Amino acid sequence: MERVYRLVMSCPDQVGIVAKVAGFIAEQGANIVEANHHTDAGNGWFFMRHEILASSVPFELAEFEAKFAPIAEQFQMSWFISDSARPKRIALFASKEAHCLADLLYRWHDGDLPGDVVCVIANHNDLRAMVEWHQIPFHHVPVTPDTKPAAFAEAERLVAHYQVDVIVLARYMQILPPQMCADYAGRVINIHHSFLPSFVGAKPYHQAYERGVKLIGATCHYVTEELDAGPIIEQDVIRVSHAHSIEEMRRLGRDVEKTTLARGLRFHLEDRVLIHGNKTVVFSQ
Amino acid sequence: MERVYRLVMSCPDQVGIVAKVAGFIAEQGANIVEANHHTDAGNGWFFMRHEILASSVPFELAEFEAKFAPIAEQFQMSWFISDSARPKRIALFASKEAHCLADLLYRWHDGDLPGDVVCVIANHNDLRAMVEWHQIPFHHVPVTPDTKPAAFAEAERLVAHYQVDVIVLARYMQILPPQMCADYAGRVINIHHSFLPSFVGAKPYHQAYERGVKLIGATCHYVTEELDAGPIIEQDVIRVSHAHSIEEMRRLGRDVEKTTLARGLRFHLEDRVLIHGNKTVVFSQ
Amino acid sequence: MERVYRLVMSCPDQVGIVAKVAGFIAEQGANIVEANHHTDAGNGWFFMRHEILASSVPFELAEFEAKFAPIAEQFQMSWFISDSARPKRIALFASKEAHCLADLLYRWHDGDLPGDVVCVIANHNDLRAMVEWHQIPFHHVPVTPDTKPAAFAEAERLVAHYQVDVIVLARYMQILPPQMCADYAGRVINIHHSFLPSFVGAKPYHQAYERGVKLIGATCHYVTEELDAGPIIEQDVIRVSHAHSIEEMRRLGRDVEKTTLARGLRFHLEDRVLIHGNKTVVFSQ
Amino acid sequence: MERVYRLVMSCPDQVGIVAKVAGFIAEQGANIVEANHHTDAGNGWFFMRHEILASSVPFELAEFEAKFAPIAEQFQMSWFISDSARPKRIALFASKEAHCLADLLYRWHDGDLPGDVVCVIANHNDLRAMVEWHQIPFHHVPVTPDTKPAAFAEAERLVAHYQVDVIVLARYMQILPPQMCADYAGRVINIHHSFLPSFVGAKPYHQAYERGVKLIGATCHYVTEELDAGPIIEQDVIRVSHAHSIEEMRRLGRDVEKTTLARGLRFHLEDRVLIHGNKTVVFSQ
Repeated sequence: MERVYRLVMSCPDQVGIVAKVAGFIAEQGANIVEANHHTDAGNGWFFMRHEILASSVPFELAEFEAKFAPIAEQFQMSWFISDSARPKRIALFASKEAHCLADLLYRWHDGDLPGDVVCVIANHNDLRAMVEWHQIPFHHVPVTPDTKPAAFAEAERLVAHYQVDVIVLARYMQILPPQMCADYAGRVINIHHSFLPSFVGAKPYHQAYERGVKLIGATCHYVTEELDAGPIIEQDVIRVSHAHSIEEMRRLGRDVEKTTLARGLRFHLEDRVLIHGNKTVVFSQ
Repeated sequence: MERVYRLVMSCPDQVGIVAKVAGFIAEQGANIVEANHHTDAGNGWFFMRHEILASSVPFELAEFEAKFAPIAEQFQMSWFISDSARPKRIALFASKEAHCLADLLYRWHDGDLPGDVVCVIANHNDLRAMVEWHQIPFHHVPVTPDTKPAAFAEAERLVAHYQVDVIVLARYMQILPPQMCADYAGRVINIHHSFLPSFVGAKPYHQAYERGVKLIGATCHYVTEELDAGPIIEQDVIRVSHAHSIEEMRRLGRDVEKTTLARGLRFHLEDRVLIHGNKTVVFSQ
Repeated sequence: MERVYRLVMSCPDQVGIVAKVAGFIAEQGANIVEANHHTDAGNGWFFMRHEILASSVPFELAEFEAKFAPIAEQFQMSWFISDSARPKRIALFASKEAHCLADLLYRWHDGDLPGDVVCVIANHNDLRAMVEWHQIPFHHVPVTPDTKPAAFAEAERLVAHYQVDVIVLARYMQILPPQMCADYAGRVINIHHSFLPSFVGAKPYHQAYERGVKLIGATCHYVTEELDAGPIIEQDVIRVSHAHSIEEMRRLGRDVEKTTLARGLRFHLEDRVLIHGNKTVVFSQ
Repeated sequence: MERVYRLVMSCPDQVGIVAKVAGFIAEQGANIVEANHHTDAGNGWFFMRHEILASSVPFELAEFEAKFAPIAEQFQMSWFISDSARPKRIALFASKEAHCLADLLYRWHDGDLPGDVVCVIANHNDLRAMVEWHQIPFHHVPVTPDTKPAAFAEAERLVAHYQVDVIVLARYMQILPPQMCADYAGRVINIHHSFLPSFVGAKPYHQAYERGVKLIGATCHYVTEELDAGPIIEQDVIRVSHAHSIEEMRRLGRDVEKTTLARGLRFHLEDRVLIHGNKTVVFSQ
């Protein structure tokens, strides 16, 4: 993978945005590797993402930002530019179930994750050995009803300490405090083990079994204060039948959970997800 | 397709059922073409379906039934035997949207539907020409809030007149009266244009669009008094993105609706669906 | 659907293309509804498609073309601009099997096909009634080994007569003459009943059955002189098992064939498919 | 999971097999947990698998076998009975690529694999640390053109030493010698990184990229002397587009490879796969 800059923006739709932005990029002699646009006709909003070959830009990122700022101002853009050479720093939050954690650790280990796992924070100690084998710091921060405020204060301290860009709840079975949801809006990703909005909350496979659905699923979404109701990044399903017990649904579901989380996280790490209201624009390939 | 008898039964699970039934079939010298079993360990219930080559049975169906009855009695079976040479008689209920109706009519016309479409009952007249081209009687039975009881009385009269075995709501946008749901329990099949239990009720594509889901779906289920809550026969989904408007979701959804309905109906017509409580056992191939 | 112009182009990749094109569009005050880009890094080629709101362009299409021509020249573009108000004219070629034909006719009838079916040409008479019910001219052009040259001459005469833009081989079981493949390059779409390149040629379901594959598929592709080897537009698969006979594979496959063909054809009709060498760029939504 | 015996058999089809077998099981007072039948009408062969609750059988497995043998004899069955309490012993063969190996090791570690990984044999040393962390013996057996016979003799010695039941080629890039294929027929499972029979042999993703397919896949199959031509156990696919480079296809493909291998292997470990000729009957749930 060659080093790229990612210029990501959204703004009220109007004539001339693409021309202006593409013109700016061309003036710098910069090479566009990938470009995506979306116009939401319903609410008149425009979304755009460019990947620009870093080696084709004749100056540093800060200068690029400074030069681009007036255009952003003109079109009232919400925007940023990121550098693939500075991968996002990830904190994985885990509990006892290993499948999502193990999957992400393996992808990171294999060089398949376009981000850096900088620490694991878990409310149980079970997964310590697996994490430490990867030479990643493991922090055991137990959470009980009594200690919850202190525990999350400690978690936030660690997140700050490690300069974390994105928190991934890899089957972390705790509900984040509302203030933390607000502080990290758009930077906390959860995997819920159902095809939302079906089966919100606890024990979704039990709910799916009771309802007799013929497909079960998983949903990767940003965490907001309202449980399992944040913007959806990615979803997937797998077929089940009357022959599957709840335990077998859990087993089949684990594979869907981990691949859905990995795909959704990848989109986030590559700055392919733009949040607007409670929905996402995902510029997947 | 060779002519087969389908022996379908469920009962409390106990040792020896399969041996007894298979022994009975073997004693008649009958040839089993397909056999399916399912034991629901959770509630201790047993389900079984056999396809038996009709030509290998040396007497008529009535005699088969009479001989089998004592075994059914012994195991307290809920059971029946059907004959593929007497396909189920289908009434299609439709409204204005043609896609599910057209799909089923085409399959019937092409010899692909293991059942007989004997009439279409619609609350609008729009689809008359399409139905009549297939030389199937079309009955326009308008439904308004005021005429609803009379309209459904007329619909039931037609259903009785045509000796209908199964009613298919092919995007029929009316809610059946509770008494009719009860009278035809397990014999009315609906296609709901969402992946239930998500998006019950009206305008599911609008709901899906608002929630920002990444897959939309359809659910084929038996109709019960509670709206969109009956036993599910079949479900399927298709991927959507931020780029799809509600209208495009409706278009993509139509293909899922019609194939999901056709698959679910086929299972029913071949006596592959056993209802138990609010769930189904579907012995698909 | 509002009326749009579709500006579609490909050319050697170089800095400044997007800026130039987007600048041109913005200068006319025209509103971009959808934009797609693709850079093929391997061969240094660039592909782009814009949908432009027709009502936002202050002059006719011919003037748009004339104004854009110098830019196209400058970048050595292969390009065209089309108008959604002038849907492509489609000739359906059929034989005896009805499923793909019936599906496309129904979509057209329902207003779901962004093109116009102007005639059906078939080498058997079986499907005449179905076609004529839709008030579409049906031409029976039998093909035998002896009459093949004359038959295809007649077919080409009809295609010319109806001013056909695209020929769809809707399970037409004849192989087009090489000259016709060349003359209509990129304008003849076939549906092959296998997941190409597996099972080229005759009886793919038999081949699939013999090989014991666990998924069967269909491939929508442009026709070239080499059998089943042209650029692929769209593919899909469905799961099968040991329990499915060849006949059941054919039945299951029919559903995949017709939806795959409909999707691929739709991409073509909306000018979303760009051919480059023996591959396609498909700007699906 | 309760302990079960798995009685698996195939034989020429004839009236009375099920009755005889089910009668035998019932006479022992044994409880059937799961039963599957398949009649291949084409070649007149019958396949059956029963899961029997071990605790419901009043004697040991050897006695069960001895009592059943006359029935097997009578119907000329190819058969065996296995015990879920004696999981199959697995040797994983690996090379440098880690994804399939890591996935299977993780499933084993998590208690999700119904078998026992007893050793890893690799022709490179790269994956030693990962394997040894799981406390599984790792044997580095290099293979060069010159040393191939000696290397495979050593591999076979290890397989014998560890009393291996099934060999899994987890992206092992070597071709087994014909004699070894014959000796371990039906006991060597490979994952090929294409949707066979497309793209046999080397570099299937390159082949897929060149052909411009819209789906890529993976195939789990038994190894036979003919390369990539053995009986298929399981296959799956994932969607790709023009936007995916070969490298991205490889990345997407890795997820399909590992889940397809894990599913296929699971079927084998649970004795759900019956080989007949060059095809399989897979009694999945």
